[in-house]
Amino acid sequence: MRSSILQRKLACRMTLRLSAPMTEPRYTPLAKSLPATVPFVGPETQERQRGAPFVARLGANESVFGPSPHAIAAMAETGIWMYGDPENHDLRAALADHHGIGPENIVVGEGIDGLLGYLVRLLVGSGDAVVTSDGAYPTFNYHVTGFGGTLHKVPYRDDHEDPAALFAKAGEVDAKLVYLANPDNPMGSWHSGADIVAALDDLPDGCLLVLDEAYVECAPEGTAAPVAADDPRVIRMRTFSKVYGMAGARVGYAIGAPGLISAFNKVRNHFGMNRAAQAGALAALNDAEWLNHVQTKIAEARDRIGHIARENGLAPLPSATNFVAIDCGKDGAFAKAVLDSLVAQGIFVRMPFAAPQNRCLRVSCGEAADLDAFATALPKALAEAGR
Amino acid sequence: MRSSILQRKLACRMTLRLSAPMTEPRYTPLAKSLPATVPFVGPETQERQRGAPFVARLGANESVFGPSPHAIAAMAETGIWMYGDPENHDLRAALADHHGIGPENIVVGEGIDGLLGYLVRLLVGSGDAVVTSDGAYPTFNYHVTGFGGTLHKVPYRDDHEDPAALFAKAGEVDAKLVYLANPDNPMGSWHSGADIVAALDDLPDGCLLVLDEAYVECAPEGTAAPVAADDPRVIRMRTFSKVYGMAGARVGYAIGAPGLISAFNKVRNHFGMNRAAQAGALAALNDAEWLNHVQTKIAEARDRIGHIARENGLAPLPSATNFVAIDCGKDGAFAKAVLDSLVAQGIFVRMPFAAPQNRCLRVSCGEAADLDAFATALPKALAEAGR
Repeated sequence: MRSSILQRKLACRMTLRLSAPMTEPRYTPLAKSLPATVPFVGPETQERQRGAPFVARLGANESVFGPSPHAIAAMAETGIWMYGDPENHDLRAALADHHGIGPENIVVGEGIDGLLGYLVRLLVGSGDAVVTSDGAYPTFNYHVTGFGGTLHKVPYRDDHEDPAALFAKAGEVDAKLVYLANPDNPMGSWHSGADIVAALDDLPDGCLLVLDEAYVECAPEGTAAPVAADDPRVIRMRTFSKVYGMAGARVGYAIGAPGLISAFNKVRNHFGMNRAAQAGALAALNDAEWLNHVQTKIAEARDRIGHIARENGLAPLPSATNFVAIDCGKDGAFAKAVLDSLVAQGIFVRMPFAAPQNRCLRVSCGEAADLDAFATALPKALAEAGR
Repeated sequence: MRSSILQRKLACRMTLRLSAPMTEPRYTPLAKSLPATVPFVGPETQERQRGAPFVARLGANESVFGPSPHAIAAMAETGIWMYGDPENHDLRAALADHHGIGPENIVVGEGIDGLLGYLVRLLVGSGDAVVTSDGAYPTFNYHVTGFGGTLHKVPYRDDHEDPAALFAKAGEVDAKLVYLANPDNPMGSWHSGADIVAALDDLPDGCLLVLDEAYVECAPEGTAAPVAADDPRVIRMRTFSKVYGMAGARVGYAIGAPGLISAFNKVRNHFGMNRAAQAGALAALNDAEWLNHVQTKIAEARDRIGHIARENGLAPLPSATNFVAIDCGKDGAFAKAVLDSLVAQGIFVRMPFAAPQNRCLRVSCGEAADLDAFATALPKALAEAGR
């Protein structure tokens, strides 16, 4: 029987050889079905398109205030010829200390983006249901689609993500995973951590909540959800890309129950972490003074962005993040026209993808010079957009 | 009908609520089946276990000679607060120039490990056949298993990977992917590029060759396979982790036909690259003088390792890499005993996983002091192993 299978294979192969050579590898059906679109266009691409660098880089919610000087020193001192520690031992130990939890509750990865990819891969197969908000983080959606999952979206409610609606939808569609960012990106809105915990009562059994707290260090006291690290219902995502000012280093971490955390070891790129980034994150975590400094700078910049918006007759939304959503008062087409003019004037900003949030611009916190440039460009942008 | 489905779901949910709460997320069947083993234990783990740092780090084929000073400067100068360019535009353009090919032939990723993961994900689904050599790169095998593929292995032939046998096996099992490292890790052996190209005649249609050339910059002229970048049968892997001395930076790239290269955009972590690493790799690529310097150091160190081996009555294998496999002259258990003693003495080395290659130690090139330490430790290790 084996030889008959071989014969069939050989016959098949001969047929192939007689026809034109195959020019494409044999992708999986899923891979073949995926679009080659990217979740975000990078500002460098836009710079190449416009033929000039941006004057102010306020579109990606990076921290222009930069990382702790100790982090910069630690990165420079790292022997980059060595692979990083695949266990991320020292960083996980420090994070465990910082949060008063165990290292077995923490997995470190290549940014939240990388960790979301691993998480989706662990849970989501072809046709599995996943719930998120319409207009929430596109990279999460990219991963869900990329592993064959089916996305179900609920609308924002008054520019806030809506835990009750998300969890109800999760029950309805039997979701394995539900995504909630608190504070929210792109709107900057937030719920108290206590409200998130209360809402968990309605999270369906068998549905894991991905609670993305990327911006929580910019938020008022009490925004971080007081969820036990061992709570099997929730996995929390944190990052060094925002307040810690290390977006280019790619260091994120997830907090969750030990079983789930150790499952990442089945799929993660064990030697995927940059060794300097590991050292930098560790140093950044230990510099509470710099964190305070940046938090102050963020609060000042948020106020200034709000002031600029109001000066131009626009309404800034309250923000618990390092950016401010500015309501341009009309529809998405109008906001897009404003954005296009800002970009043409060298101001890199972004905007929400989905209506009605796409009536807004999203402007990241910047230094005074960045915001001066934004303040100068905005009136012209509004005029060009035909207000 | 919709409401009856809902009622059943609610009923089911109530049942669940009455029973104990689910403590595990609903993993995919594949994820559930995977072991939580890691491809490699890191030297830092061994250092923690032994309670002391290694004296010589010669186990991971890193380059103790370090990266170009220009690369170090470029990394230090990078504004790490910014995300990296998701297109890796400048690095890809420079690599295209370097190789005389188009940027559309190049994808940059988080080390070859990361790129292998993406490649396997694009091609390999449940039960798909993949061919490699028994004892070749475990991280490739990890990815294949991780996406549900079935590995078929062929033996080495005289300590060389065996293209003819690999490609014959690929035809036999209808493999979508076949892995071949040239030069080989862990043996250091190699084929001429011309021989690889000649062997391609027997690569089955519909099977893609992953040609891992991680060590090719250490190899004699003519080892790099003269395959056209547009050749749809082959994807080549290159890295800045070896001769370029930047293992901790995580920069690899793949060269292949534009269709295959662009398919990576469907699954890769677009913002996964460390911005400093991008800049460092670009600077490293432009420093041909440093590359020459390292190539000379590697050649010297290989000679020295060979000399130490022979002084101890062992046989060094010819190497086209930055390491030397040393034949300990007995079986795997003996080599393991030698290795254990070396590790206990503070010398980090590794050894091949599969017989009969596991009669060898694998010793990476090092500075004189590293190799002095190895030379001192080896006689004791051989004695302790009971020679």
